[in-house]
Amino acid sequence: MQFVCLDFEGVLVPEIWIAVAERTGIAELRLTTRDEPDYDLLMQRRLAILNAHRIRLSDIQMVIAGLEPMEGARAFLDTLRARYQVAILSDTFYEFAAPLARRLGWPTMFCHALEVASDGRITGYRLRLADHKRRTVRALLDLNFQVFAAGDSYNDTAMLGEADLGILFRAPENVRREFPALPHVAEYDALLDRFAGAAR
Amino acid sequence: MQFVCLDFEGVLVPEIWIAVAERTGIAELRLTTRDEPDYDLLMQRRLAILNAHRIRLSDIQMVIAGLEPMEGARAFLDTLRARYQVAILSDTFYEFAAPLARRLGWPTMFCHALEVASDGRITGYRLRLADHKRRTVRALLDLNFQVFAAGDSYNDTAMLGEADLGILFRAPENVRREFPALPHVAEYDALLDRFAGAAR
Repeated sequence: MQFVCLDFEGVLVPEIWIAVAERTGIAELRLTTRDEPDYDLLMQRRLAILNAHRIRLSDIQMVIAGLEPMEGARAFLDTLRARYQVAILSDTFYEFAAPLARRLGWPTMFCHALEVASDGRITGYRLRLADHKRRTVRALLDLNFQVFAAGDSYNDTAMLGEADLGILFRAPENVRREFPALPHVAEYDALLDRFAGAAR
Repeated sequence: MQFVCLDFEGVLVPEIWIAVAERTGIAELRLTTRDEPDYDLLMQRRLAILNAHRIRLSDIQMVIAGLEPMEGARAFLDTLRARYQVAILSDTFYEFAAPLARRLGWPTMFCHALEVASDGRITGYRLRLADHKRRTVRALLDLNFQVFAAGDSYNDTAMLGEADLGILFRAPENVRREFPALPHVAEYDALLDRFAGAAR
């Protein structure tokens, strides 16, 4: 009985903040957890930039509504869901994830939430739980599942280490170099093969 | 940030063992957790009956492939998944649940597994975890979700008690009488209203 835990951005969908940076022309918003591993620092910087440019939640949601899942992501996820149980563990926010989750057939997601003022300004965020990706994997292990995980970023490495099998997927060179013990694959089929080979 | 935990049979799909009893004409298979709250005792009796009648996994899977989710179940589940995260917590087996899960758009399911001999006889089952419904609700609470739950049977009452809001759905009279503290509703819309009213 297996559970597969997947990171969201970079594994199934594009990096949302990079898309926002491109569409708004604000290059500073290109920062991700790949560049700034301290998540709270990263978020405070992002929110300050948004408010300085008077960008509201609805503006970002319009950008996200125009994004597509990565090529092959839906078929990959459908294959996974027919074989295993699947949870998406992401440090994005439910308010951002929803339009993409709908396109992916509403997979179960573990995210955070935004705080939004009545005028639509994003005033803050509620981290549901620190270190939630690793803790969710731990909870599933304690519920007696075999757990596989895949992700591409610094904020995935703790969950990848906690899982029975953790795999870096299309991770940038710096992450791969810092975590040489984690196997790396670049294609969905290779990920399916790794999971199938490890299933008890 | 809310998680909804739902029982499967009696809430979203018909009672699988009752359907098998009807199609095979073996009345003894009509027993459910409503009648026999000791789950292991119930399962041992079911497996002995199946083997006495030479009924194999593939026979049962054919029956299940012919079942429909309950009227309105898919729309109810789709509405839930657009609003909250959803997990189905069931004491059935993945081998039985899969054809129905496919029709419901692959919701995330927490179940058990069967042991099947090479000739297709069901020789036993692997309970993933005792008391798994309540423990899963506990794990989600510990991951800082507000948790709502709904079910119809004895084996749901522990998870209903553990959740922030637990509701009996179309429960038989004996269960309602034994657990008078649990609210009861009979329609999906009423369940949606209860959840919406309790969401923080």
